[in-house]
Order: sequence, then C-alpha cells, then structure tokens
Amino acid sequence: MKPVCNAIVGQSGGPTAAINATLAGVISACLKNENIDTLYGMVNGIKGLLREDFVDLTEEFKDNFEDKIRLLKQTPSSYLGSCRYRLSNDADEIERVFKILEKNDIKYFFYIGGNDSMDTVDKMSSMGNKYGIKVIGVPKTIDNDLGETDFCPGFGSSAKYIATVVSEVARDTACYDIESVTILEIMGRNAGWLTAASALARVNGERTPDLIYLPEVPFDTDEFIKATEQKVKEYKNVVIAVSEGIKDADGNYIAASSMHLKEDLFGHAQLGGAGKVLEMLVKDRLKIKARSIELNTPQRCAAHIGSKCDIENSFNIGKAALDFALSGESGKMIAFERNQDNTFSFKAVDISLAANAEKKVPLDFITPDGCDVTGEFMDYAIPLIQGEMDIEYKNGIPAILKLNR
Amino acid sequence: MKPVCNAIVGQSGGPTAAINATLAGVISACLKNENIDTLYGMVNGIKGLLREDFVDLTEEFKDNFEDKIRLLKQTPSSYLGSCRYRLSNDADEIERVFKILEKNDIKYFFYIGGNDSMDTVDKMSSMGNKYGIKVIGVPKTIDNDLGETDFCPGFGSSAKYIATVVSEVARDTACYDIESVTILEIMGRNAGWLTAASALARVNGERTPDLIYLPEVPFDTDEFIKATEQKVKEYKNVVIAVSEGIKDADGNYIAASSMHLKEDLFGHAQLGGAGKVLEMLVKDRLKIKARSIELNTPQRCAAHIGSKCDIENSFNIGKAALDFALSGESGKMIAFERNQDNTFSFKAVDISLAANAEKKVPLDFITPDGCDVTGEFMDYAIPLIQGEMDIEYKNGIPAILKLNR
Repeated sequence: MKPVCNAIVGQSGGPTAAINATLAGVISACLKNENIDTLYGMVNGIKGLLREDFVDLTEEFKDNFEDKIRLLKQTPSSYLGSCRYRLSNDADEIERVFKILEKNDIKYFFYIGGNDSMDTVDKMSSMGNKYGIKVIGVPKTIDNDLGETDFCPGFGSSAKYIATVVSEVARDTACYDIESVTILEIMGRNAGWLTAASALARVNGERTPDLIYLPEVPFDTDEFIKATEQKVKEYKNVVIAVSEGIKDADGNYIAASSMHLKEDLFGHAQLGGAGKVLEMLVKDRLKIKARSIELNTPQRCAAHIGSKCDIENSFNIGKAALDFALSGESGKMIAFERNQDNTFSFKAVDISLAANAEKKVPLDFITPDGCDVTGEFMDYAIPLIQGEMDIEYKNGIPAILKLNR
Repeated sequence: MKPVCNAIVGQSGGPTAAINATLAGVISACLKNENIDTLYGMVNGIKGLLREDFVDLTEEFKDNFEDKIRLLKQTPSSYLGSCRYRLSNDADEIERVFKILEKNDIKYFFYIGGNDSMDTVDKMSSMGNKYGIKVIGVPKTIDNDLGETDFCPGFGSSAKYIATVVSEVARDTACYDIESVTILEIMGRNAGWLTAASALARVNGERTPDLIYLPEVPFDTDEFIKATEQKVKEYKNVVIAVSEGIKDADGNYIAASSMHLKEDLFGHAQLGGAGKVLEMLVKDRLKIKARSIELNTPQRCAAHIGSKCDIENSFNIGKAALDFALSGESGKMIAFERNQDNTFSFKAVDISLAANAEKKVPLDFITPDGCDVTGEFMDYAIPLIQGEMDIEYKNGIPAILKLNR
C-alpha cells in the first residue's frame, strides 16, 4: 500500500461551463481513494498557491457529497477561482511552489487549464522528481485548441450553446419577409473551432448559417460582399458566422480596422468588433438591413445548456487524472482518445507537447472556398454536443454551488 | 348551434419565445371546436392577409397533432412569419381586409402581437360588426409593456433567460481576483421590465447585479461613476444591468452620445450602445477593467430556456381567445388577471385601452436611489419565471417546427 498523503487541485485560465465538472471528477476520485488523506484546492490557481491560499476540499465536500458534486457539475466558471498567471522561468519561483507543496505533505498536483496553464505544468514537471511530487495537467478550454487531445473539455458545451443560439437566431431573423443579414461574432482568436461549431445548427436539416468565416483562412472583404449578396438573392434572410479573429491576407485583424487594439495580460491582442465591421460593410456596400450579434461571454459560461457528452467526459477526465498520477505518471497532460464508436478513452501525453501548442481547425475541415465547414468537421463535432444534463433549477434559475469563504 | 364557419390567426411584431405557444393554443382550440371548419394562418401577419397569403392550419396540423403542438410550443419566433406593418387609417384598406375575410367565410379574426399590432386590431374593431366578424387581439411582447394585462406572454421566458445569463456571467466575472466591471445591456427602449428582470438572478441569494438602471429614471453619469466606484471598492467584481434606452435628465439617449441614431420603420429611434458608452466611461474615469455585453436578440428567442409559467399561460391565452370570440366578444384584447395564489385568469379588455399604451415599470418597483428594484418588483416577477419546459432535443439541439412552404 502506498503511504497516505495529500493532493492539491487548481483551476486556471478562462472560465468554461465544464471546468467545474473536471474539478468534481478530481474531488470524487480523491475523496474515495484511501491513498489520499486531504485534497486541497488552490484559490485562484497557482497565484493563490504562491500565497498559500488553499481550501480543504475533503472537509468542504464531506457532507452531502453527492448533492454537492451534482451541483458543482452544473455550475459554470471556476469554483476555486482562476488566474491568468504563468509561472515564471525563474527556478526560485518554481522551487517556492514545491516548498509549499512539500510543507503541506502534498504528493499529487493537478492543474486544470488551457495552453497557458499547461505551460505552468510544463515548467514544474522537471522539478517534480526531485521533490517526489507527481505533476499532472488536465485540459480545459472552450477554444478546443490544445494539441494531443481529441477535444478539450468545455468545447462541447460551448458548441452546443452556439449551435442552439444560431438555430434560434435563424428563426428570429426569418420571421420578416424582408432582406436582412445577421452576423454572429463568435469567440476564437486564432483557432476557429467555436465558429465552425455554428454549423451544428444544421444537424436537423436547417440551412443556416449561410456563410462561416474562420481565422484559419485569410479573409477577403470583396469576396465576402460578393458571397453575402449572392446568399441574400437566394434566401433573403442570411445568417453569417464569423470568428472574432478573422484576418486579411496580410495578417491584419478585420476588427482592427475600426478599433484600437489593446493588449491583454499575456500580450494577446484584445479583440472584438469583427462582426460590427462586417455589419457596417454590408450596410454600406449592399444597402441591406444588417445586424451584428457578439455572442460574448455566455459562450463560455452557459452551463444551463451544457452538453452531457462534454460534462460527463470532463468529469471522467478529472477522475482519470488521479489514476494516472497514482500509477506513477508525472509531467503529463491527460488527453482524450476517440474510439470508433465515438466514446472516449484517456491517455497521458507528454506535457511539453501540449503546452503552448495551438491546434487550429485542419484545412480538410474547411471547404475549398473558405466560407464553410466540411462533412469531416460535422463528423468530428456532432458527437461532442450530444445529450443534455438534467439541470436542477431553484426558484426559476439553475442552482449553483459556491465556495464558502 | 352556431353555423360552422372559418377562423384566421396571424402573428405580428417582434419575435418572442412564447408567441408560437399562443398560436398553438389558438390552433388547439379551433381544431377541437365543432363551430370552426377551417383555421387559416396569415403568412407574415396583416401584410400577408392583404395579399391573400394564407396557410390552412387545419390541414397542416391534421396529422400528428399532439407532436406538432408540442414542438410548436418550443419553437421560437413566429411560425407563420411576422410583419411590422400597421394598418393605415384609410377606411379603404380596412375594408379590403374585411372583404378578404368575408370571401373566405372567416368569422373569427385573431391577431397575436404587441402595441403596434393591437393598433391594427383597434382599427379593425369598429368595422367588425358591419361584417359580422369577431376581432380579437392576443398580447405578446417580451417588453411587457402592454396595458390592461398583468403580464405579456413572452416576458417570463425572456426574464428567465436574462436572470440565468446574469447569474452565469456573474460567476464568470467573479473567477479572477481582480477589479472588474461588467455591464450587461438589456432590451427595452422606454420600459425597463427586462432590465429589472436581471434582479431575478438573486432569487437564490446571490448579490448581483450590483446596480440596475432602467429608462424610467433619468440617468446621471456622475452618479453612475460614483456608485460603480463604491461597488468596486466593496466587491471587486461588479455586474451592472442597464437598459438600452436609458436617457439623461434632458431625455437624450445615453447610447446616442456615441452613435448616430437611425430611425426604424415605426419612427422609434434604433438603439444599441448604451452598454458600450458606459464601458468606455468606466475605463476612462475609473481606470478599471470593464467589459460590456449586449444580450441582443437571444433575449427574445431563447426558447431552449422558456419559462413554463410563461409558455403554458401563453398557450392558454390562445385557447381562451376562441372562447371569448365564441361568446360574442369583439374589439377586445384578452388579458391576464393575477389570482392571489399567482395563477392567472383571463378577461377581455377594450382594445382601445390596450393599443398604443405603453406600461412602464411603476415607480414603487424602483428603489428611491434609482439604481435597483424593490421587493414589490420581485414579488411581481418571480412567479413568471417558474418552471421549465421539457424541451425535446434532436441531435444535440432543440427540435423545432417549421412551416412547410
């Protein structure tokens, strides 16, 4: 029998509708495992760890365990709080993290996050052996852009929300017998997975969206206007899905043409406005009624319509993380492997392969004309939005679980 | 026994998540009533009627009646298509409508819509007697601003969506340990009902939204900045709900300060942008991270999270419309009366009282400082968002019913 010790889990990066399901999986696994004495939670990720700000999740979930796990799975955003803090390359800071872990008898370190968070795990992994601490990354990002995994937890739920909203907005715009263009601006700086997911509004034979523009393909304004005009002629009410990150052939953001770009904490350009720019363009060049809708943050926190496939797999990957750690893995990210029947298995992949890599939509998922997705994309994505969670409502809105502190 | 004759129903004005439930109620009632031979549907409202563009709903719903009614109730926007066309004051045009009805042996005319649509019903009502045609209006508007009725079908579902999104976005913004202001721009030009509904995010004890600004109260920029600064000091992450139609003491739209206003078809100023203006103001004056989110059209078409109270009452008012017409009422709008136990009864109110009147949020629903709602508002609104529809999903998104033509 392994010696009894402690574990810690943290959440990092942008919120999703599924990151708490993964946390629920880690909590479930650790609380039921006799090798783990106490599971700690970092408050606000590695930033909280550095100031020794933990909560005792074993204590927190001791009573009403099943109810709390069920509510946690349907609570959006990060239960423990998050941060946008990348561990520095400075060995001293990394060493400090390990000293804190050692002091608390923590032998298992789980970090749930996206690209930047996996970079933190990567930086820690080499020092893990020295301290005898297993360091495991668990993927999370609505952007679906982490390498080495079939999909990223959170993407399926965002995709289901987007497909539903596109379908609803398409009904909305079709109700008047007049020409109109509705442009939906969808999240995704460099990878167009979420914008591609707008095509899932067609799963039951609907036509819309009529055009889909991803950041993977250079955006040509004249081609866009020509294509839009053609679609309006054909269908009158036209719905267009466009990624916030579309760029022209020279790599300039379309959004940038009307907005001053600001830099966010990681030096990514802070986007928004591609939809507005195209709306103005349609009004100006085609003299047609146009409206742009920025789907905005509800894309990443609409847990009320979470995908069961996504949420349950997110939960299970959290549980799998402990299994891999106990079996001796470290410096790894747990990843999904798709089986032939569209169920998923887990594997541990080298963290350095996953960190900082950005998986874009492959070109065979995009039509040759660059303004739609292919059947290959649909085959890939449709399984990820299947199933609905049995959401518990309280007084008319979904119930949530909040950290008491 | 009354002689067997025909009836017609139309949908008009902006889409909602509940207007098809009312249509489903009219269809249910008419198809089961032996006095009605054929129920016709106007395609695109009165505009379609004027070009004699009908569908035969009796034929359309003959097969698989129960399934179709169930799907229609969960389909957003207008199944029959809508229009923004107000019947002119010209007696010739009104006469033309009646000639078309007479030619088709139509004795019952049902029109589902908001203020402008009730104006059409009002204009027709005086001529109804001459032709022996019963003219009935059925309310519909997410804005909840029709007079003479406790609430308007569609409002409860929009309110439930807004409350849920506010709750989700509040979780989203709270995940970082940094100061931030998130401004949600909510629909409502002159009546702040939907913005007030953001307070329903508090039904389970949550704090947010921290500030709520309705168009019923003059908006003071300096007061807003002072209140926001105070809330940030207190809570770090602040969520503010603001109506698109907020105006300063001189009646100028706040949105107008950064946007050129365009006039829509009815001469209403076309709004949008109040949230953006306030976001810039917060960034500029307080130097705090700020984001604005325009909830946009999903507010009126998010049928996937329809309120059961709203949808079932919308269905029942459609059924009640036929009862009132058969009992001899004409020139009336059917309205909701609230019982002590928060169930609802129906009454027929004079259409001239309902048409063109705009019911604003009463001042006792707004706190004296003008930036929140009172317990009286909560008591009024909470019952309207209760209950969830058992939405049928197909391939991962909600199934809908579409008119085949």
